[in-house]
This record gives sequence, structure tokens and C-alpha cells, in this order.
Amino acid sequence: MTATQTTTDLRSAIDKGNRQLIEALSNRDIAMIRECYTTDAQVLPAGFDIVSGRQAIGEFWSGALAAGVASAKLETQELAEGGDSAWEVGRYRLHGADGGQVDHGKYIVIWKQEGGKWKLHRDIWTTSVSQPA
Amino acid sequence: MTATQTTTDLRSAIDKGNRQLIEALSNRDIAMIRECYTTDAQVLPAGFDIVSGRQAIGEFWSGALAAGVASAKLETQELAEGGDSAWEVGRYRLHGADGGQVDHGKYIVIWKQEGGKWKLHRDIWTTSVSQPA
Repeated sequence: MTATQTTTDLRSAIDKGNRQLIEALSNRDIAMIRECYTTDAQVLPAGFDIVSGRQAIGEFWSGALAAGVASAKLETQELAEGGDSAWEVGRYRLHGADGGQVDHGKYIVIWKQEGGKWKLHRDIWTTSVSQPA
Repeated sequence: MTATQTTTDLRSAIDKGNRQLIEALSNRDIAMIRECYTTDAQVLPAGFDIVSGRQAIGEFWSGALAAGVASAKLETQELAEGGDSAWEVGRYRLHGADGGQVDHGKYIVIWKQEGGKWKLHRDIWTTSVSQPA
């Protein structure tokens, strides 16, 4: 169930999917962000209800970018394939326009193939920054 | 990939796992909470680093219960099996000792069989309550 036990093919496909998302975010390319997700994807961000579908996901990321996210780093910790989907546990870092780290935490992504490409299907993350009581 | 397409067996096993966790939380039974998770489980809560292993997970929940969580409701939205694990998307509600709702949101759980029982293996959730800017 660890990355090393997973097929290399899956790992490089997921790496590619993550690189694409990182690139889309840093280019503020909402159309490309939407393409990283399956058509019926869901994002589950803190402070919002479930965000369903590419259109709504694009709007969510548009808001997050406007709020000061300039770039992201993603690091896969674990990847497991099962059936027509795969699940990934990873860590993220978000940076602002000045390069400073604005947030860091961890995530789970359920990946699914669509049109022969692995895309984010379910996406949830939590900050590791301790919160006011 | 929806609950209705999933085998009834898996759904009832996951329902049972969720009922057990809800019961353990409302009884403040830390040993039973630990038993709901696989031995190498991880919980990914906001405001904390990844919480790894049953001992640390028991301590995390002990803290959450001390902070005012008295009971939880869980509602499976989606469940999909793949390989030796399954992933679930759901909604949660947390209530305080006076019965009032203290939080609500959504979660993803990766379930895994251990000792013939489905247990929480990876567990992450986010509040849907909007947060101060």
C-alpha cells in the first residue's frame, strides 16, 4: 500500500497529474485547472460545502488564487490503485506571490481515469498550521 | 462508483464500522475508538500534522472529546471498493453535550480490512462552516 509497492506506471501518471495541477495553479489557468479534474469531480474544502463539477471547481480555485495563493508544491506520500480508481495521501505547501509559505498541510486525492488520463476525482486537504482555539 | 452500485455487503460492513465509531465517540471509549482504526491508520485533522497509529489516534480523539464533542452523526454519500481497500465520501455532524450542533462538514475515509473487519485506514474531514477571512 506504499508508493514503492505501486506500479511505476500509476506513479508516473499521478506525478504527471500533480505537475499539471501545479502548473495550472501557478499560471492561474482556470481552464487548465478544470481539465485536471474529472467532469464529475468534487473538491471538499474547509469553510465551504462540497464543490461539485468542473465549473464550480474552477470558480473555487479562482477565488483561492485571488485570495493570495501563487504556487503549490505537492509531495506524494502514498499511492494505492484499486478498481478504476486510485487513492493518494500527500503533503502540500502553498506559497504567496512573494514566495513566502502561506499554508502547509496534507491531502487525500481519489484519482480516476477519464479519456485515458488520470484526473483528480475527489480532493480534500487540511492545513497543518495550528488553529486558534 | 455510487453507493447503489456498490455491493450490499461492503455497504453494510462500512455502516457497521461507522456505527462502531459513533458509539465509541459517544461513550468516550478511547480503547474502542482505537479498535475502529487499522493498526497503521492515519488521521489527517486540520491544525495538526498527520496523526499516525492507534495510540496517537486515541490521544487525538481524547483531546477532541475533551474539547466538547459529545456525539457524531455520519452519513455515507458514496462508497467504492477497489483492491484491498475502499473509499468513502460522507458528511458528518458533531454535537456538544447540550445536543447543540458544534460542527458539520464532509469527509473521506479509506477503509481497509484487518482481521476480517473493515476499519478506518485513512481519515480526513473538513468543516463546512465558513471561516473568518
